[in-house]
Amino acid sequence: MPDNSCGNSRIAGCQFTLYPMSDRFVDIILGALEEVDTSKVWKETDDVSTCVRGKMVHVFDVSKALFLHAAKTGEHVAMSGTFSIGCPGDTEADAYMDETDAPLNEQRSNEISQEAGCKFALYPMGRDDYMNAIYEQIDLSKHRKVKVSGTHYATRLDGDVSDIFSALQASFTSVQEKVSHVTMTFTISANSPSNKA
Amino acid sequence: MPDNSCGNSRIAGCQFTLYPMSDRFVDIILGALEEVDTSKVWKETDDVSTCVRGKMVHVFDVSKALFLHAAKTGEHVAMSGTFSIGCPGDTEADAYMDETDAPLNEQRSNEISQEAGCKFALYPMGRDDYMNAIYEQIDLSKHRKVKVSGTHYATRLDGDVSDIFSALQASFTSVQEKVSHVTMTFTISANSPSNKA
Repeated sequence: MPDNSCGNSRIAGCQFTLYPMSDRFVDIILGALEEVDTSKVWKETDDVSTCVRGKMVHVFDVSKALFLHAAKTGEHVAMSGTFSIGCPGDTEADAYMDETDAPLNEQRSNEISQEAGCKFALYPMGRDDYMNAIYEQIDLSKHRKVKVSGTHYATRLDGDVSDIFSALQASFTSVQEKVSHVTMTFTISANSPSNKA
Repeated sequence: MPDNSCGNSRIAGCQFTLYPMSDRFVDIILGALEEVDTSKVWKETDDVSTCVRGKMVHVFDVSKALFLHAAKTGEHVAMSGTFSIGCPGDTEADAYMDETDAPLNEQRSNEISQEAGCKFALYPMGRDDYMNAIYEQIDLSKHRKVKVSGTHYATRLDGDVSDIFSALQASFTSVQEKVSHVTMTFTISANSPSNKA
């Protein structure tokens, strides 16, 4: 669970799992990892999930690129995870905060056109009284290419994967400017047979 | 995102997705759904996730049973989701709060022996100053059959699926007694080939 003695590091992180619903899941995951440049983030993978940490721009760049490179196989692929900022940094990962801002995977990600559905929820910690004001600050109507709808416990976004990640990153950025510790859960799904009905 | 005008309903909910890493993913998901009695929870499924709402005991009972019945196929199966309480109830789902407490799937779930690894994180909303005290209240050492370890942004539990869900439910129950709005993210994974190395 979150360590609250972590101070005010602005290191961002994402703990996520990539799920290819396919017998070829190992190849698809390893293939995506091979195509994505993760050199600007701290990264650790075990049998349950992968954690990347570093500057926010690179955490989103790497997460989006991994999903896109897995989804472009045409298999039903999903990714669930949690973005966090404000907690927890450490010497090992903080070194990655010195990387330059240019995202390494942006160009190749932009070449992949992929529709998806995504549900996300933002949790600004320790500021319940501010939540309504904060949600007003998130203006999803700016993201015109993404269809926004409400659902229980979450907001749903439908559209191109790059546009969805842009909306996620903008919402997360906007809230973390006001609240030191913020988490954002997301599940994004592509090529689901439920959508071909 | 969470609706904060939801009052104080003690209805619990879980928004989750079941991920069989197999070409047979549709059959595995439908098969699990067929074997699990969901009549004591409100339930809605779309192409991204499933949401169940009702009394906490049934929300955990149904989530655990669905994971177990999918995992017992022997395929690599994972589930990611978020448990919530305190928000949001509505007339349609609140009707399920009148159900009796006896969990419908407990007996059959107990018959399935299945090892898994799980990462979870608890987010008590709007009470940052209380977080350390709350975490002290969660005594994971009570769950002696589960191996507990720390990881970035989460706590890891390893052991039998039923023991893991018991620890999750006890932690969640303990915190929601002190904080009106709590969420808990989790990812649980079984039969991963990474574990057979």
